[in-house]
Amino acid sequence: MTQREYALNNQISEEMKIVAKDEYMNENTVVERLKKGTIAIVKNKNRKIKALAVGEGLSTKINANLGTSPNASNIDFELEKMEVALKYGADAIMDLSTGGNIVEIRRQLLDKCSVALGTVPLYEAGHEAIKKGKKMHELSVEEILDIIKRQAIEGVDFMTLHAGLTSATLKRYNHTERLAGCVSRGGAIMLEWMHTNNKQNPFFEHFDDILDVLREYDVTISLGDGMRPGCLADSTDRLQIDELITLGELTERAWAKGVQVMIEGPGHIPFNEIETNMIIEKKLCKNAPFYVLGPLVTDIAPGYDHITGAIGATLAATTGADFLCYVTPAEHLRLPTLSDVKEGVIAFKIAAHAADIATGYTNAIERDHKMSAFRKALDWKGQFETALDKEKCLEYRKDTPDDVECCTMCGEFCSMKRDSDTIKK
Amino acid sequence: MTQREYALNNQISEEMKIVAKDEYMNENTVVERLKKGTIAIVKNKNRKIKALAVGEGLSTKINANLGTSPNASNIDFELEKMEVALKYGADAIMDLSTGGNIVEIRRQLLDKCSVALGTVPLYEAGHEAIKKGKKMHELSVEEILDIIKRQAIEGVDFMTLHAGLTSATLKRYNHTERLAGCVSRGGAIMLEWMHTNNKQNPFFEHFDDILDVLREYDVTISLGDGMRPGCLADSTDRLQIDELITLGELTERAWAKGVQVMIEGPGHIPFNEIETNMIIEKKLCKNAPFYVLGPLVTDIAPGYDHITGAIGATLAATTGADFLCYVTPAEHLRLPTLSDVKEGVIAFKIAAHAADIATGYTNAIERDHKMSAFRKALDWKGQFETALDKEKCLEYRKDTPDDVECCTMCGEFCSMKRDSDTIKK
Repeated sequence: MTQREYALNNQISEEMKIVAKDEYMNENTVVERLKKGTIAIVKNKNRKIKALAVGEGLSTKINANLGTSPNASNIDFELEKMEVALKYGADAIMDLSTGGNIVEIRRQLLDKCSVALGTVPLYEAGHEAIKKGKKMHELSVEEILDIIKRQAIEGVDFMTLHAGLTSATLKRYNHTERLAGCVSRGGAIMLEWMHTNNKQNPFFEHFDDILDVLREYDVTISLGDGMRPGCLADSTDRLQIDELITLGELTERAWAKGVQVMIEGPGHIPFNEIETNMIIEKKLCKNAPFYVLGPLVTDIAPGYDHITGAIGATLAATTGADFLCYVTPAEHLRLPTLSDVKEGVIAFKIAAHAADIATGYTNAIERDHKMSAFRKALDWKGQFETALDKEKCLEYRKDTPDDVECCTMCGEFCSMKRDSDTIKK
Repeated sequence: MTQREYALNNQISEEMKIVAKDEYMNENTVVERLKKGTIAIVKNKNRKIKALAVGEGLSTKINANLGTSPNASNIDFELEKMEVALKYGADAIMDLSTGGNIVEIRRQLLDKCSVALGTVPLYEAGHEAIKKGKKMHELSVEEILDIIKRQAIEGVDFMTLHAGLTSATLKRYNHTERLAGCVSRGGAIMLEWMHTNNKQNPFFEHFDDILDVLREYDVTISLGDGMRPGCLADSTDRLQIDELITLGELTERAWAKGVQVMIEGPGHIPFNEIETNMIIEKKLCKNAPFYVLGPLVTDIAPGYDHITGAIGATLAATTGADFLCYVTPAEHLRLPTLSDVKEGVIAFKIAAHAADIATGYTNAIERDHKMSAFRKALDWKGQFETALDKEKCLEYRKDTPDDVECCTMCGEFCSMKRDSDTIKK
């Protein structure tokens, strides 16, 4: 049984108990929200990990994307990136490998990953096509669906499936103007397959069969947004919202089969459209957990998209998003390095935490109060222990002479010190 | 005459014409808003610079703080930091020097700075006290006021004066609980002076005399927020709002004397309180331009406060802030290096630009559309020329083999390429 099915049977699983305890939530509330689908507890039933709990009333979680590409593939490097992501607080990992021995990479990541691991099975499909000397559209429906089954058996906890791209989407796409077009890798593979074969999306056509597989292993379906806007100009357009309507319908079908669901969201969205995007997802998809990529609030900052993304993500998570996919400084430029992964995770931890404070999540602000008390006391050790990144703090502090009680920014002009020493002594 | 006085006389100055042209605004609208005080055109009448125009309907501007401290002072380094700040798009510079030969540093900065330059005269006062072997509270009123006059003559374009800290503030401060207390350097100096001497704030007491000096040189007064919250726990508290009420009263007195005004704002503010802070400033200060520091949306990220600040700044500028003071990764840790200055300026350029898009500022989004068209065309040169930081893009791109048309993140899985080549060819 899936976590959803346990809940529907009014059974409280171990996973639910842990979530309830960790998140200051009544166990019955966890059960009720699993029933409604507003919470997902993401964990393949064959995996021994800390489940990823996302949704209504839970703290905001973040995901770090890893993975090789045809131009760069090295298993050890993937494992190192995963370590960095976990060290700085990623709540989930996605393996988006498209190059090298991707089955073995996934096997090793699954083996060593202590949190939920997700994939985009179409990437393995595309990779397999290349290996077999085929074009991607030459893959058979069976070959594609088989990959989902194999990955479910292997233990993948959640899968992005672009099931909302239908023949109707493709038709609408062909007569709708877009600046960046289709920027989803999985979405583009699927549209090419549908376009070239003149056939319906197999994920859509065989949705019930896929659900049976996912249900068996309690794999959470992350309904992909193949039509997500890849630039501000394409945001919140008909293609995006049309796909979201279909994702809402698919959500109800998945729930009816006992399968847990997340909805994937954009992308590139102007800051003033973000709240609308959160509300419309919650409405059209019956409050299914929303998993967003950024969103990036401007297109002009390659090299800094961890910042453009963290800005959008903070507003998104404050107004409805449950799960944030990080963006690294390498976005739009290259595969991320270890340092890119670190920068991305920290930027999104900031966004998630700032949003949890904004929505009043229980005790979220306590760490800030602790930090501020250390600041006021000029207790540098205490500050650094409380900080998101102790090492960077130490690095920045290292040139300060030992006899400087404050920091080199203010020296004896330190307001904290003056305040304590004189004004409010 | 000040720009405000020209406007009150219905005269359109050269500066107003330039603002109108640069900002897609009717010249008469500029005049009307100067009269109302909702716009300030910041420029000492003796300086030859591009004036800083901030306020209603204008694009969001950013300031970069420079300056020495008692622990680190080097003129050449200050000039280098200024160059970096200007290169990446700072619209104004503040010289916050508190160490070394600060008169000479300011002279050289004023000489070479092509944009508005601001100061906090109390820092020079504090520095002078140290030089004379005095405690800061031993400075006479005359010594303090004299510095304002000297700086105005030298050409300083705007000055932060903590005139809103009154004896009543001090009394309230003494019986109000705060976690971080008074974190404003200038504010703390002033409170110490008032507390130790048991006297009223000379900026408040001699406000009219100060305004006469500022008016003579058209120095814009930036009414400092000595009671700004220095941690989330202290945000939007009675002390902060009480001071804002006084700043509103002082604003009207300054306007009555023909002096242009900006209001300074926080600081550390939870994301969900930012819009409220913008609205209350506009209400209490009659829509005077709002100049905010960040705000930082969490306290726990030293080393990343350019990000916590850019998040808050985007929402602030979307909901009312006109002028953003950058925060660098060095905040709370040390004086910024060249790289810290660069990171801070770019993070705040992102915030200002994202907010201008969100508020529909004329043509703001055009650069994004240009970037997205280059992305779609896989035109890397075009992308990098359009980016906020071309050098970082080139650095990130440099390991990509020349024969890779896309980037190493996706390689042949590139959705942009697939989309153009197959689906929508």
